[in-house]
Amino acid sequence: MSAPDRKPPAQLAVRRLGIDTQSEPVVFLHRNNPVSHAEGFEAHNRVLLRAGSREAIATLFLVTDDILADDVAGLSEAAWRRLRLAPDGHVTITHPRPVDSMSLVRGRIYGHELAENSLHAIIRDIAEERYSNLEIGAFLTACAANPLVRDEVRALTRAMVDAGDRLSWNADIVADKHSVGGLPGNRTTLIVVPIMAALGFVMPKTSSRAITSPAGTADTMEVLAPVRLGAADIHRVVEREGGCIVWGGAVRLSPADDMLIRVERALDIDTEGQMIASVLSKKIAAGATHLVLDMPVGSTAKVRDAAAAKALTDGLLDVAAAFGIHAVVVTGAGDQPIGRGIGPALEARDVLAVLRNEAGAPENLRERALVLAGALIELCGGAPKGEGIALARAVLADGRAWAKMQRICLAQGAMCEPPVAPHRRPVTAARDGRLVTIDNRKLGKLAKLAGAPEAKVAGVDLHVRLGDRIAAGMPLCTVHAEAPGELDYALDYAAANEAMFEIVA
Amino acid sequence: MSAPDRKPPAQLAVRRLGIDTQSEPVVFLHRNNPVSHAEGFEAHNRVLLRAGSREAIATLFLVTDDILADDVAGLSEAAWRRLRLAPDGHVTITHPRPVDSMSLVRGRIYGHELAENSLHAIIRDIAEERYSNLEIGAFLTACAANPLVRDEVRALTRAMVDAGDRLSWNADIVADKHSVGGLPGNRTTLIVVPIMAALGFVMPKTSSRAITSPAGTADTMEVLAPVRLGAADIHRVVEREGGCIVWGGAVRLSPADDMLIRVERALDIDTEGQMIASVLSKKIAAGATHLVLDMPVGSTAKVRDAAAAKALTDGLLDVAAAFGIHAVVVTGAGDQPIGRGIGPALEARDVLAVLRNEAGAPENLRERALVLAGALIELCGGAPKGEGIALARAVLADGRAWAKMQRICLAQGAMCEPPVAPHRRPVTAARDGRLVTIDNRKLGKLAKLAGAPEAKVAGVDLHVRLGDRIAAGMPLCTVHAEAPGELDYALDYAAANEAMFEIVA
Repeated sequence: MSAPDRKPPAQLAVRRLGIDTQSEPVVFLHRNNPVSHAEGFEAHNRVLLRAGSREAIATLFLVTDDILADDVAGLSEAAWRRLRLAPDGHVTITHPRPVDSMSLVRGRIYGHELAENSLHAIIRDIAEERYSNLEIGAFLTACAANPLVRDEVRALTRAMVDAGDRLSWNADIVADKHSVGGLPGNRTTLIVVPIMAALGFVMPKTSSRAITSPAGTADTMEVLAPVRLGAADIHRVVEREGGCIVWGGAVRLSPADDMLIRVERALDIDTEGQMIASVLSKKIAAGATHLVLDMPVGSTAKVRDAAAAKALTDGLLDVAAAFGIHAVVVTGAGDQPIGRGIGPALEARDVLAVLRNEAGAPENLRERALVLAGALIELCGGAPKGEGIALARAVLADGRAWAKMQRICLAQGAMCEPPVAPHRRPVTAARDGRLVTIDNRKLGKLAKLAGAPEAKVAGVDLHVRLGDRIAAGMPLCTVHAEAPGELDYALDYAAANEAMFEIVA
Repeated sequence: MSAPDRKPPAQLAVRRLGIDTQSEPVVFLHRNNPVSHAEGFEAHNRVLLRAGSREAIATLFLVTDDILADDVAGLSEAAWRRLRLAPDGHVTITHPRPVDSMSLVRGRIYGHELAENSLHAIIRDIAEERYSNLEIGAFLTACAANPLVRDEVRALTRAMVDAGDRLSWNADIVADKHSVGGLPGNRTTLIVVPIMAALGFVMPKTSSRAITSPAGTADTMEVLAPVRLGAADIHRVVEREGGCIVWGGAVRLSPADDMLIRVERALDIDTEGQMIASVLSKKIAAGATHLVLDMPVGSTAKVRDAAAAKALTDGLLDVAAAFGIHAVVVTGAGDQPIGRGIGPALEARDVLAVLRNEAGAPENLRERALVLAGALIELCGGAPKGEGIALARAVLADGRAWAKMQRICLAQGAMCEPPVAPHRRPVTAARDGRLVTIDNRKLGKLAKLAGAPEAKVAGVDLHVRLGDRIAAGMPLCTVHAEAPGELDYALDYAAANEAMFEIVA
């Protein structure tokens, strides 16, 4: 066929629009933009942006108004960051190559099991941000509708590890810990790590920030010390102190996992296979050899009952074994928060109270941390079966854990005391009676409405425990906020959701 | 609990930003906007916009730059239209009520069949635009991974009908026609309707615009006459002339269907049950009693082979019967376009050539239209079995169909001649040989790149048929475009995709 040779795509000047679309790159073009016309783009097309050797797939919005000149490309923050543009930079915009691995996802939808190389192709494309959220949603839904078989879970785990970076350690035993989410508070990590490190174990802990919860471990640790460390700094801290508690996001461990989780939360679906691959891929990538898994079980926790706990435990241990990881699952009551504070600064305050052996420190946080540390000590060969918890208790009681925590914080860059919110108001009981249930999900939402985790000081301070006798007018919790508007808003929510605390006469 | 009463949400002034996001409502707020702060909104939240009694659920983008003042809400075109705002209008923005029916979708993902009232709840929420594309994608994926059973298909069809408006007719027999897509050209509707109406049958045809194809029947008819008629005008035309060919979008027949199809196309998945409900819900809502279904079968058509045709036919006839519709499926060769033109004006030109009995009229378009009209005449009792096609041929040959078509166009508002594109260039054969395959999908894409259907005159004019002897340099088709840039771009695509026409020595 005769036709002119393909011309190189035109360069467009860029404009940073300062639009936060979270992780979704968006490019705005004027409808009269010659590139849009020539390429046959329509609004909501997915387009390929290129700047030098960097690429991003973005959603296209067409502008008909004069907010954008017709010869520039306006970029959302996510697009701007991904392309690492300068204000005088240029981009080319073309149709993206088709994402071949979506045909494998379609095959999975129609019932074909995914082979290891197929899962690698899918996860690589997801990690390279070639998939739209809609496509990721279809993959997750397919894996929920016809659950991943064990071979697929192992292959998915390996694919997720291979799609990112890995940390490696000059030690035979590398201890690690993970909580299978769902409970507010629960900052045992900040107690377990200094205990283990004080005992001479290597425990380089990488943690996540909150996605939909009021605080992730990294958010809480950040109240006490810097957490955004690169791989070299992490190694330096661990070589010096044996342990660290840092944000995993700076070292790109299993990056596809973050994208899957974001969509999973938006759809509010989760699947056992996906959860197993998510947890273990991060631990394998972080170089763990010995792993304690904290699994709260309760009606408003992630794991609802004993049967679900058993199934998930079997799956986790099977896949961990396949990767040579020694793992143990420790279940526990998941019917109420662990500790009193919910939100970064309030949780950090609880952790410090335990580490400093203060009289009023939350007992359930201390005991849960000791149980987990004890199990991990035994798993790592640091104590005979049944004697780990006593060793952990001794290290905490004599101040070695607190001393270690201070050294870890300083090695990470600084040690700070948690600040206190300027605006605080109690939520009080409307009746007399006994407290019989606490809705963890609603309590988490209350803390978020108060501003957590963006406002470190914001959150909820819980004053009651299940079984407590309650008198009308008594404060059940105190909402902490940085601004009076947020405080009002959170209290409105509390008033409209009295069932958060169920009090029975 | 004590807490202040809930304040009414604050009113924000609006600004129309002229941003085309297709069907997705988007609202832009400055990060410092007090509403965003108070409500705890994050970027990419789904928020509820209210203006008077109108509502829209929108995606929220936060702006940090000065392109937007911090006390206004900037709206995309879809949001602006849905709320029918005036430039001095105001909106409130709050968290949307949770979409309860998503829990039913999650149940379907985990394998629970959907009862009739569950499907009603899901489809009603989709029709009211409460679902995000991600959520619609999860519903479709679940229905593909574990296919809808027959009862679900019937219930889905009924739910889709009930979620929209219905047309009703003062006639015992209401004829209708539908093509189970996938073939470029194929504008038999514009020939079948005037034949049926000329014979005295009632045939009120509502058609769609293109979604991903270079032209829908409504786009092609719009070249000849206005198609955007409301229900009262449709009734007036049909009472006077017995038939019409209008765009169905103005009368809200099965509105959920359009949203499902858009997401289905984006994911490139389709499911038989969904397709059956899609086709029949539109026909039931349009008041059809007798329906001919055109089903092209071919490797690049929607229905790939005889087995798929059989399964789809069984499903369509079963559900049609459940709703009291007399239906017949007419399969036919789907290996190449029907007619020569692809694109609104070129297809309209072909239709007129057939209706006017011009010497060079495309024979395959005429014959396919006569086969379908014949089957429909027989189904409606207008001729004994086997004699419908002769009756249709007579009505076409003696000019009654053409006369009726002119009256229908005039009743719809005007009768126009198709315009011709100012820029045209041929795609020529690179070698001698015989033409053995035509890739319908690539040919459709070529017409779209040339500008169809937005540019009515744009498209592809095909000069060859399967089996033709081809000489190198001979024109295979001519690309028509409104602008030289689009012409270049389409020809680039043709040059890069020679396999569109397979020529074997």
